[in-house]
Amino acid sequence: MKAIVAHSAKDLRIEDHPDAEPAEGEVGLAVAAGGICGSDLHYYQHGGFGAVRLKQPMILGHEVSARVAKIGPGVTGLEVGQLVSVSPSRPCRTCRYCQQGLHNQCLNMRFYGSAMPFPHIQGAFRETLVADAVQCVPADGLSAGEAAMAEPLAVALHATRRAGDLLGKRVLVTGCGPIGVLSILAARRAGAGEIVAVDLMDFTLDIAKAAGADRVINSREEPEALSAYSADKGTFDVLYECSGAAAALTAGIGALRPRGVIVQLGLGGDMSLPMMAITAKELELRGSFRFHEEFAIGVDLMRKGLIDVKPLISHTIALPDARAAFDLASDRGRAMKVQIAFDPSLSSSSLQA
Amino acid sequence: MKAIVAHSAKDLRIEDHPDAEPAEGEVGLAVAAGGICGSDLHYYQHGGFGAVRLKQPMILGHEVSARVAKIGPGVTGLEVGQLVSVSPSRPCRTCRYCQQGLHNQCLNMRFYGSAMPFPHIQGAFRETLVADAVQCVPADGLSAGEAAMAEPLAVALHATRRAGDLLGKRVLVTGCGPIGVLSILAARRAGAGEIVAVDLMDFTLDIAKAAGADRVINSREEPEALSAYSADKGTFDVLYECSGAAAALTAGIGALRPRGVIVQLGLGGDMSLPMMAITAKELELRGSFRFHEEFAIGVDLMRKGLIDVKPLISHTIALPDARAAFDLASDRGRAMKVQIAFDPSLSSSSLQA
Amino acid sequence: MKAIVAHSAKDLRIEDHPDAEPAEGEVGLAVAAGGICGSDLHYYQHGGFGAVRLKQPMILGHEVSARVAKIGPGVTGLEVGQLVSVSPSRPCRTCRYCQQGLHNQCLNMRFYGSAMPFPHIQGAFRETLVADAVQCVPADGLSAGEAAMAEPLAVALHATRRAGDLLGKRVLVTGCGPIGVLSILAARRAGAGEIVAVDLMDFTLDIAKAAGADRVINSREEPEALSAYSADKGTFDVLYECSGAAAALTAGIGALRPRGVIVQLGLGGDMSLPMMAITAKELELRGSFRFHEEFAIGVDLMRKGLIDVKPLISHTIALPDARAAFDLASDRGRAMKVQIAFDPSLSSSSLQA
Amino acid sequence: MKAIVAHSAKDLRIEDHPDAEPAEGEVGLAVAAGGICGSDLHYYQHGGFGAVRLKQPMILGHEVSARVAKIGPGVTGLEVGQLVSVSPSRPCRTCRYCQQGLHNQCLNMRFYGSAMPFPHIQGAFRETLVADAVQCVPADGLSAGEAAMAEPLAVALHATRRAGDLLGKRVLVTGCGPIGVLSILAARRAGAGEIVAVDLMDFTLDIAKAAGADRVINSREEPEALSAYSADKGTFDVLYECSGAAAALTAGIGALRPRGVIVQLGLGGDMSLPMMAITAKELELRGSFRFHEEFAIGVDLMRKGLIDVKPLISHTIALPDARAAFDLASDRGRAMKVQIAFDPSLSSSSLQA
Repeated sequence: MKAIVAHSAKDLRIEDHPDAEPAEGEVGLAVAAGGICGSDLHYYQHGGFGAVRLKQPMILGHEVSARVAKIGPGVTGLEVGQLVSVSPSRPCRTCRYCQQGLHNQCLNMRFYGSAMPFPHIQGAFRETLVADAVQCVPADGLSAGEAAMAEPLAVALHATRRAGDLLGKRVLVTGCGPIGVLSILAARRAGAGEIVAVDLMDFTLDIAKAAGADRVINSREEPEALSAYSADKGTFDVLYECSGAAAALTAGIGALRPRGVIVQLGLGGDMSLPMMAITAKELELRGSFRFHEEFAIGVDLMRKGLIDVKPLISHTIALPDARAAFDLASDRGRAMKVQIAFDPSLSSSSLQA
Repeated sequence: MKAIVAHSAKDLRIEDHPDAEPAEGEVGLAVAAGGICGSDLHYYQHGGFGAVRLKQPMILGHEVSARVAKIGPGVTGLEVGQLVSVSPSRPCRTCRYCQQGLHNQCLNMRFYGSAMPFPHIQGAFRETLVADAVQCVPADGLSAGEAAMAEPLAVALHATRRAGDLLGKRVLVTGCGPIGVLSILAARRAGAGEIVAVDLMDFTLDIAKAAGADRVINSREEPEALSAYSADKGTFDVLYECSGAAAALTAGIGALRPRGVIVQLGLGGDMSLPMMAITAKELELRGSFRFHEEFAIGVDLMRKGLIDVKPLISHTIALPDARAAFDLASDRGRAMKVQIAFDPSLSSSSLQA
Repeated sequence: MKAIVAHSAKDLRIEDHPDAEPAEGEVGLAVAAGGICGSDLHYYQHGGFGAVRLKQPMILGHEVSARVAKIGPGVTGLEVGQLVSVSPSRPCRTCRYCQQGLHNQCLNMRFYGSAMPFPHIQGAFRETLVADAVQCVPADGLSAGEAAMAEPLAVALHATRRAGDLLGKRVLVTGCGPIGVLSILAARRAGAGEIVAVDLMDFTLDIAKAAGADRVINSREEPEALSAYSADKGTFDVLYECSGAAAALTAGIGALRPRGVIVQLGLGGDMSLPMMAITAKELELRGSFRFHEEFAIGVDLMRKGLIDVKPLISHTIALPDARAAFDLASDRGRAMKVQIAFDPSLSSSSLQA
Repeated sequence: MKAIVAHSAKDLRIEDHPDAEPAEGEVGLAVAAGGICGSDLHYYQHGGFGAVRLKQPMILGHEVSARVAKIGPGVTGLEVGQLVSVSPSRPCRTCRYCQQGLHNQCLNMRFYGSAMPFPHIQGAFRETLVADAVQCVPADGLSAGEAAMAEPLAVALHATRRAGDLLGKRVLVTGCGPIGVLSILAARRAGAGEIVAVDLMDFTLDIAKAAGADRVINSREEPEALSAYSADKGTFDVLYECSGAAAALTAGIGALRPRGVIVQLGLGGDMSLPMMAITAKELELRGSFRFHEEFAIGVDLMRKGLIDVKPLISHTIALPDARAAFDLASDRGRAMKVQIAFDPSLSSSSLQA
């Protein structure tokens, strides 16, 4: 079967890899759709990010849906042909953080397509995949594309839980890439009363608006727009910081009310922060990283029609055009979520479209 | 102007009362619609409940919408003719609980239509009303009937905040009168993943279903249905107990998972509870009483279309038929929320309808 | 070796049982001291409690300290001769509650000396014991009697965590048996500002006072004393209910301020509760059951001198007098914590003393 | 009467000011002792800090105790001659934050000795003072010096509440000036299991040790000592950051376990933070600013002997030597808390001592 392998910066190859058979507790999967994430792009563009560098070829990808092709011994609850969302997260369940219910902080995590450990954890951008049955969440009724959105949706749902009760709250979202827009969907689903979204691009802001933002601000065109929210020590109860940019975080801090909560999702490097404002307004800056039980929750909410991710899927590209798909996904002015169709019947759009 | 006055059990009169003029910070209101609540029914049917008894004639009612008729000195932000939801809650803002932000626990609360203090606090079932401007929340775009639902909706929203984070949670609602059904709406708005509702009446369960319950159980017809949820120490994360009946609470306790949360909304007398289960499963039973900032939040959510209370308004009855309206509201098999039209143009239904 | 075995109500025998050898990850222990708990007394006096009944002979006891006698393969961090507190709790670490960090809610719990499952889980009142190394917490510097207090102390510490932040709070404790007095110690350690303790016995109240209660109330002699705390909707922030008696809980509810927290530790049967007060004051009744990581925390706090449990150990009785020890422990007017000396050198007191 | 007035950087004068009479609800006070705080030093050394600058002469000081000298009309509960701790905090009680119980975030705060608003709020370093009765907390049984520690103690107690439950937790304190050492006392009082303190000075670390730190680290002498705590993603549950130095915060972040909490007390300017670690370990950085009800709580805990601040009071200097006292207080290698004796009978030490 074919797999998308990053060898080094800009060296992305579609290669043949051997198929595998499911063992006890495992299933064989035919991958359907796979979404390109920011970390995939970092490996593709730069060979890594921060201290995380490719040291060997690695199959990319961790946002995939699949059809069950073969069921291993001892597996119940799945059927051949069934569409599933495949969680890329495989915590050990025994380390001290797993035992505390913090599986996303597992000391022995094997997360698809990650160069953090060595040997690297191979990813899921491949035609066939053997996975643990517990990674597979039935996605009946969803499209393959929607089912492949379960992973980034889980990230946004986890962040929403980190934010605490949102019912009737005023929410600011900085950075409207896929995670920002999914945060809008999640915040609305959790009862947010008012949602304001900020980005530098009208393309992404239009999608943010379609996803339910009450107001969108292009901070390049309206650099002072957020200032209006800083009167009387500030307005917003919660900030989802999805840009990883210090300027966005700093602007957001000014617009937060005392005791406001910042959920930091965007991954940047070191940032210079206005600590006086954080301290004097008693803000709470909370990191949010990956997810655990939110993966199945997200699939369930999509299946019930309580969250609709379809507006985010801007492109579906056939596997042979994977490199072009990566280039397209790197362009924030044209692409939101670009998915690769591992199942040839899925491609509904192309680079020409 | 006319007002609906309870003199004693079964002695409900429509009487003339003098109009008043708004003073500093007040507004004169023409009441539009008024919903009949369980406590109104208790005064009507029994002259009170528990230790709370009518000791003097009292105007009933605390769920009203109104049109602004006259604006007193120093009031800004309201316009003559504007539809408003009128909060019945007037905390003192200075007692120790108000100073802690617990206005619903105010030591000097003056809540419309309450015989708890003496002299009683006169209610809002009257054609004209002078209220503090801060009680009036603009309800532009809502119908008078929807605007009059702000009060019970606020009760359900307050309970939902008491429940804590609901995103993706499994929720059980026992008792599907107006508060139960509004709790379904509120829980769904706050992100509940699965909602199961229990009542004794198919009439109320049909409305619960329409309001978004994933499953409804008639506990008279299916007395064992909840037992299926008690395997492995239980299923539900949260129970909204809206019936005030010990049997419902006890059945719910069996179906809650360890660390599950019970929000107690239903007002009954003393109840015999299975303390061993509460202790061993480490459940949390939290009382929920009235509301504060949730009143304005609810109006805002209705105006944005994020909560739709229309399915609950089963009847709108003209003021002259008020007594019949109270009788109808007492019949859980036929009526959900019965509203009285103080504005004659509103009556869209009648007892004959 | 000798073990204390309950055959049925009032049929307690000291019997010979075979010794065992530690396997991989286990240690062989010479039990030092063992405290008699309320559940031990229930088995002794009544053959069980509620639905839990002795169906076969069961070694009692779950509050023990021991000396390490033999170290099994693969065990590190323990030395022969070392004094340890032995946790009676052996959760499976794999069920869904363990995976959520709720090990005290384990679906497959094997807790020493419990007749809940069948076959019953044999207890630790025995001269020698083989335990998992992870059950053994080094207790260097403590007396054998103090080390055997780790289990009930863990119960009180777990309850204290359930209570939430106590710094400067006003705390009421109803029921001053060992769990009540340990709750006083734990609440003070957690920063409680004022502690009032209630019981029916001057004997226990004297120990409560010695443990740090600011005021003690004999509710038989001063039945109205708590009423003074119910002005302005109540006084106490937190109630540790350790009596399992509905009258105590009801009196405590009246003295709690709005949003006050009840931690229910006492195990009684069904109780009739004033639900109107719980609902209207928005109290939170939280069950608290056993413990998990609090076991090691308690040993650590004792070793650092931050909690002193010595005032609770009222009697130490030699193993051959075990039946008399159980009778003495049943008398709340004379005994607080009665411990059995499995190590003959420990007996510092006797029934004659 | 005499007052200590800052005119500009390095221009500190002892001047005569008129006495005042207490009005309704007020008391006349004879100031006893006054502690010099970091903000006082900033006005003295630099004429302000950040954007806050002296624009007119301002009496310094906000940490004072006093004797009641005259009782104004309508005041109850205070007696002439009584020692009181005087809170410098006068929130308006009506703004939206006060109404939410966040009095420390009051929009109209008048805090003694602050140049943030203009006209500046005059301080309490003066022989006589008229204050609201509600600012005065009886301090019977304390020394004047201890009573004057109520304000910085309240800061540390507020931070401790911000930290959440500490029972048995592992705590790191960076920066061992008065706020750092008071944080050690507060954390221990709240049940912290292990406390490690870091500073650059042996003088302050010796006091930290005396205050109960289990281990102290001189980060100048042992720059790598904290690294040992970063294994397996980190060790500490809570960090009190009291230095306001980015290097200390960054080192602390490395030593915190996933989901660890940082309480930021130290006021610095902008800081460059390792956002990747904050995000990936899901840390929570919480600002903590001033206090509200913790002021009275701290006085109560001191009076009960539950917190002992005496080890912090390194010097008591007579009013005529105030300038020398400010110079001494600026020397972290010799002084912890320097207090000025406004009551001449208090000076127990002098610059020569």
